[in-house]
Amino acid sequence: MKETNDGVLEFPAATGSRARGRVRVGYLGPPGTFSEQAARTYDRAARHVAFRDIAGVVQAADSGDVDEAIVPLENSTEGPVTLTTDLLVHHTDLRIRREVILPIHHCLLTEGSVDLDEVKVVYSHPQAIAQCRASLARLVPNAEAVASLSTVSAVQDMQIEGPGAAAISSWRAAEVLGAFVRASPIEDVPGNRTRFVVLARKDHEPTGRDKSSICFDFAADGPGTLYLSLGELADRGINMLKIESRPAKSSLGRYIFLIDLEGHRTDPLVAEALDRIRERASSFKILGSYPKAATPET
Amino acid sequence: MKETNDGVLEFPAATGSRARGRVRVGYLGPPGTFSEQAARTYDRAARHVAFRDIAGVVQAADSGDVDEAIVPLENSTEGPVTLTTDLLVHHTDLRIRREVILPIHHCLLTEGSVDLDEVKVVYSHPQAIAQCRASLARLVPNAEAVASLSTVSAVQDMQIEGPGAAAISSWRAAEVLGAFVRASPIEDVPGNRTRFVVLARKDHEPTGRDKSSICFDFAADGPGTLYLSLGELADRGINMLKIESRPAKSSLGRYIFLIDLEGHRTDPLVAEALDRIRERASSFKILGSYPKAATPET
Repeated sequence: MKETNDGVLEFPAATGSRARGRVRVGYLGPPGTFSEQAARTYDRAARHVAFRDIAGVVQAADSGDVDEAIVPLENSTEGPVTLTTDLLVHHTDLRIRREVILPIHHCLLTEGSVDLDEVKVVYSHPQAIAQCRASLARLVPNAEAVASLSTVSAVQDMQIEGPGAAAISSWRAAEVLGAFVRASPIEDVPGNRTRFVVLARKDHEPTGRDKSSICFDFAADGPGTLYLSLGELADRGINMLKIESRPAKSSLGRYIFLIDLEGHRTDPLVAEALDRIRERASSFKILGSYPKAATPET
Repeated sequence: MKETNDGVLEFPAATGSRARGRVRVGYLGPPGTFSEQAARTYDRAARHVAFRDIAGVVQAADSGDVDEAIVPLENSTEGPVTLTTDLLVHHTDLRIRREVILPIHHCLLTEGSVDLDEVKVVYSHPQAIAQCRASLARLVPNAEAVASLSTVSAVQDMQIEGPGAAAISSWRAAEVLGAFVRASPIEDVPGNRTRFVVLARKDHEPTGRDKSSICFDFAADGPGTLYLSLGELADRGINMLKIESRPAKSSLGRYIFLIDLEGHRTDPLVAEALDRIRERASSFKILGSYPKAATPET
């Protein structure tokens, strides 16, 4: 793998001549990450372009180097991906065009058919190790957990170490890097999912089963300002799907509110409610309208 | 360090005879963690007892093995600590008695006075490495970043490796484990803070400068239910300080709302508003009333 100056990770598969003319979707690389799985779930035929960090993915879509960016927005266990939220609120005019909900499963990988009792070391990202502690005690009772920088580099660390090593990673990393899946899923608490969003210059046209994401804040801190704004939704029978407050970076004690609501921004009642909220807000932004994703079986 | 079966990490300093009779405060160990810094900021004279995970800290306070538990609740960069939130909502009757807001600073540590140009490897938790990438390129241009399981074990990994190694950790870990702070703070984006809460059997008596944390959900999903509940606060001039929705574990599409509001639960207007919200809610819980912490300079 070769890292270029602008943070693109170059891989032969992504730069071959077969890729020309296809939609280019940027994601947080390298291949084998959950972001790559999300990109493949979203559009398997697209040309998937790996970047070193989330900011790089978004910048590439901003500048037109890729057509779309797929980025993680929230995880059911870890909560919101604050970095992505802040990029959306403050640093890009891209819109949310789609959402993709991916079940997050960890697998135990080895190089060959080594006896699991003989495994002495298991590599993974500390978060993945923490999420699989009970399974590891059962599956590889004689192994010590050792940290890697990511679940993908864990597979490489395992391959460098040789027999006697295992890794916690995804089935896709096993496929990309050539390792054996010995047990899956191995996370101690089931139901872990990450919600990804696809960012593009335009959001999605109405489909009849849509949601919209907005953010706003208020100059005045009166207790009723948020209440009055939510009233604009409630009075029109518009369902709120999610609400989150984030500290505004400008000053302490001021908040930005992020809301997901049912309906498309071009639906007359939604449009009217959003106009009323915009009038009251100090800053206001429609992050996008897009079809609701089905929640997958885990 | 010795780990006992019930998840307590035993250290000579915490079990000596000088400790008897003092308030026992449980925290996420080992010594040197940001949780230990928060415990010392909160009550330097207390006996600080380290646990292996956050659930263990809370269980110990539940069973009376410690008097109070100090746990991280949200980070300004990473967002809410979902595990702590879920424990508070679902698995304990402990109340929030205090909040402590701790600036999170990373430091570059070495064993001795080694020339930083000679440093070949820097250990830390992947999250800390990611947060200090630009500083590392400047300070230790010839070093490769290598993952450790925590910022505390990074210092131990550095000490095992010997000269030529550095670590990203806290000043407190440097103090506890005996390392030199070569540069501080080294995080690329300033202003990183974590909000800890102190859990105990009783919350705090009124001080005149208090806040209260509550959580609730609704059986009916009507768009107006949250709106009407917030109206109970707005109608009484009670300021909402924070709002967050979390998916209810019981069924998809149902949410639990977590709200911080100004005032003590025994203030007559607050008590009245909370009673009205409780009447409308399917489940309702007061997580505690406690003095507002000052936000520290970073």
